[in-house]
Amino acid sequence: MFVQILDFIGTLAFAISGIRLASAKHFDLFGAYVVGLTTAIGGGTMRDLLLSQPPFWMTNAFYLICTAFGLVWVIAFRKFLVKQNNTWFLFDTIGLALFAVTGIEKTLAAGFPFWTAIIMGTLTGAGGGVFRDVFINEVPLIFRKEIYALACVVGGVAYFVCYKMGLGNVSSGLICGAFVVLARILAVHYKIHLPTLKSED
Amino acid sequence: MFVQILDFIGTLAFAISGIRLASAKHFDLFGAYVVGLTTAIGGGTMRDLLLSQPPFWMTNAFYLICTAFGLVWVIAFRKFLVKQNNTWFLFDTIGLALFAVTGIEKTLAAGFPFWTAIIMGTLTGAGGGVFRDVFINEVPLIFRKEIYALACVVGGVAYFVCYKMGLGNVSSGLICGAFVVLARILAVHYKIHLPTLKSED
Amino acid sequence: MFVQILDFIGTLAFAISGIRLASAKHFDLFGAYVVGLTTAIGGGTMRDLLLSQPPFWMTNAFYLICTAFGLVWVIAFRKFLVKQNNTWFLFDTIGLALFAVTGIEKTLAAGFPFWTAIIMGTLTGAGGGVFRDVFINEVPLIFRKEIYALACVVGGVAYFVCYKMGLGNVSSGLICGAFVVLARILAVHYKIHLPTLKSED
Repeated sequence: MFVQILDFIGTLAFAISGIRLASAKHFDLFGAYVVGLTTAIGGGTMRDLLLSQPPFWMTNAFYLICTAFGLVWVIAFRKFLVKQNNTWFLFDTIGLALFAVTGIEKTLAAGFPFWTAIIMGTLTGAGGGVFRDVFINEVPLIFRKEIYALACVVGGVAYFVCYKMGLGNVSSGLICGAFVVLARILAVHYKIHLPTLKSED
Repeated sequence: MFVQILDFIGTLAFAISGIRLASAKHFDLFGAYVVGLTTAIGGGTMRDLLLSQPPFWMTNAFYLICTAFGLVWVIAFRKFLVKQNNTWFLFDTIGLALFAVTGIEKTLAAGFPFWTAIIMGTLTGAGGGVFRDVFINEVPLIFRKEIYALACVVGGVAYFVCYKMGLGNVSSGLICGAFVVLARILAVHYKIHLPTLKSED
Repeated sequence: MFVQILDFIGTLAFAISGIRLASAKHFDLFGAYVVGLTTAIGGGTMRDLLLSQPPFWMTNAFYLICTAFGLVWVIAFRKFLVKQNNTWFLFDTIGLALFAVTGIEKTLAAGFPFWTAIIMGTLTGAGGGVFRDVFINEVPLIFRKEIYALACVVGGVAYFVCYKMGLGNVSSGLICGAFVVLARILAVHYKIHLPTLKSED
């Protein structure tokens, strides 16, 4: 129940991030919905394909409904979205943390090594945003700016440490999620960026 | 037999749409062929991956040959393609309808719920064009303009109604296809567009 | 052992090609690593998904380590990379040949027809570069310039001829690889390009 509320919050925040960028590019309603949906479910879909499992959203309409809700929200509160930025940043971060934990646990359950699980957690959390940026024809944001995907890696390492210390799934997941949230908030607050690669010329 | 002729017409039209856009971007022969092929088979390939089934074209060279035929056509009739636009529009619409029906039926046969089948029908019909536009580095056309993917959704709902009324596969498929064709032609004829999302500023 | 050395050389060259282009676009360290990794493993991952097999890199950390090594190399030798261009061209070509052979053999082992195997060999060799170019938001290079993917097709046909002549896996693979290398080197040396499609206007 608690996890479902987080899932709703996270999916909504991811979908809204896609829909807002689509609206900035003058997509129509259908295009905005598809970009929102892809942002929300794209990472998890890639994970499930790589794990040879049926994509999670194909038997559960929850994610489609969430995205529809996000579309209505963006249309209704268009003028207030900028004021809600802090809230959506928080919700997006909660989604990132939850998706990372889900990705890690599903990969471990499928019998893959831990480093694969950390990659899958990162892909689940940050992959949707890459699809979003490809669809709006921009260089993916997570490759250029912000500690975003890296927060999932930090959380994944925290999960690994908890796991090695003998903690259970629930505790490890909570601690992992807390690390993701903390890493992202600290990075934004202290404006921590990864160094950019120098070009050759 | 009748279905195979439609499949040829549809695949050819999809491939040619990809090859023409590739030629406008000065792709070489190989690039144009790949973009044409991806336009023709991309949607169905995504569907088959999501359904955990081997992609349909991997055991049947028909689609590769169709695409080669499309490439020869574009080279031979380059100066007349614009005059053929109405024909290609019709063939493309036939392909859209057939691919939507195929996607719906394959998904239902795999045991997924009806709303998943409608999504898969839409993906089968409209997905190839998204790959095409990503490859030529443009924002996907179906997100900005034209009732295209939405015609598949309309057809999918028609299929669902027929199915609930107890009609068989063949009748439901035909009616679904007719609705796709009708929705697209009416939309183009009466210049019906979805509203564009207003941006925030 | 010999194959593993080639695999290291090829993976490194592919990763470095991705990292260099990412650095030209001012990606951060994480983005450059992801683009490098996708260039190195993207083609093989698509192949494995299409063959319904678990992606090769998910149980073997070798490819992640190679890519990390490539990132360090680009940072350390930034000013000398242009001077190393001939070496990297050679290594990249070796990778292309090896990946093409791997793709062909894995597809034949899965029971698909030979023409599918040639497509899969080409996808394994050239697919990573397409992902790379989509991520850096450019029209894929292999669609516009250079005999690159086509060298894999040439090699694939050579494999087929050897196979029909009754040669074993090892000989066929070696001859296929030699043809890939030869085709690419000759094409670059004699500046052989495929013709570009004329646009309609």
